Amino acid sequence: MRILGIDPGTGITGYGIIDIEGNRLRHVDNGIVRTRSSDALPLRLKAIYDGLSAILTEFSPQEVAVEQVFLAKNPRAALTLGHARGTAVLAAVNLGISVHEYSALQVKSAVVGYGHASKQQVQQMVKALLNLPEVAQEDAADALAVAICHAHSRPLKQAIARG
Amino acid sequence: MRILGIDPGTGITGYGIIDIEGNRLRHVDNGIVRTRSSDALPLRLKAIYDGLSAILTEFSPQEVAVEQVFLAKNPRAALTLGHARGTAVLAAVNLGISVHEYSALQVKSAVVGYGHASKQQVQQMVKALLNLPEVAQEDAADALAVAICHAHSRPLKQAIARG
Repeated sequence: MRILGIDPGTGITGYGIIDIEGNRLRHVDNGIVRTRSSDALPLRLKAIYDGLSAILTEFSPQEVAVEQVFLAKNPRAALTLGHARGTAVLAAVNLGISVHEYSALQVKSAVVGYGHASKQQVQQMVKALLNLPEVAQEDAADALAVAICHAHSRPLKQAIARG
Repeated sequence: MRILGIDPGTGITGYGIIDIEGNRLRHVDNGIVRTRSSDALPLRLKAIYDGLSAILTEFSPQEVAVEQVFLAKNPRAALTLGHARGTAVLAAVNLGISVHEYSALQVKSAVVGYGHASKQQVQQMVKALLNLPEVAQEDAADALAVAICHAHSRPLKQAIARG
């Protein structure tokens, strides 16, 4: 079972891929898709869509997990982020891959053990859990974290589904 | 020259198509793409994407215009709307069609003559400008309005581009 986690953003979109092998998680790849701030939003969305589509095609994950971002700051930033997040979701569903959403609280709880962990704590725990040689880039680490969160919640989900 | 206007929303996405024939605007089609509120967001985005892609393919507009929505209300609503708007933009750019953005103020100024017109005034003016037999559905009328706005601003844009 292979999972791709995505941390979407109009500037930098992080991705992280893990395999579930029995009771273990194995790191496959992580990285970022970067867009040009000088480009208009439509072109940036296309860059995110094409970048993620290429990664989805190359690594063929069975499931995709995306953080259910909730930017309390301001509506304009939330609107723009929504464009990037919708683009990430579409790249997956257009390839027939199911998308699962988790709140930041769920992701941090699953990875660090409590919901108000810092970015650095997430990076360190992701490194430890996946035996990475060094900490991943911030957005790539967040993407790996949501993939780990999905991996942890899968057995529970299946148990619920089976009744 | 054929223009497709889009008024995106996760529940109802309006579209409206007009042709510029010399100095006149001709109504071609308008309607809505509706999604099921019982479906998860990824499926709703796919429904919008597939619906708009089919319309773009059927009517082959040269350019697409989308309202640059600014929901001042709350960040969560803005985030969700951003998903729908990003989806609409992607459907066009993935078919190689350029996307142009206009603020609500620009759209209302172009269609009604002042920026704080009501939804009903927009519907009535769109009906009058395009000789529609009856007022279009609210979201479809907004989509026609942004298409009209783009049609009006094109000669100016070209003049600027030519210097």
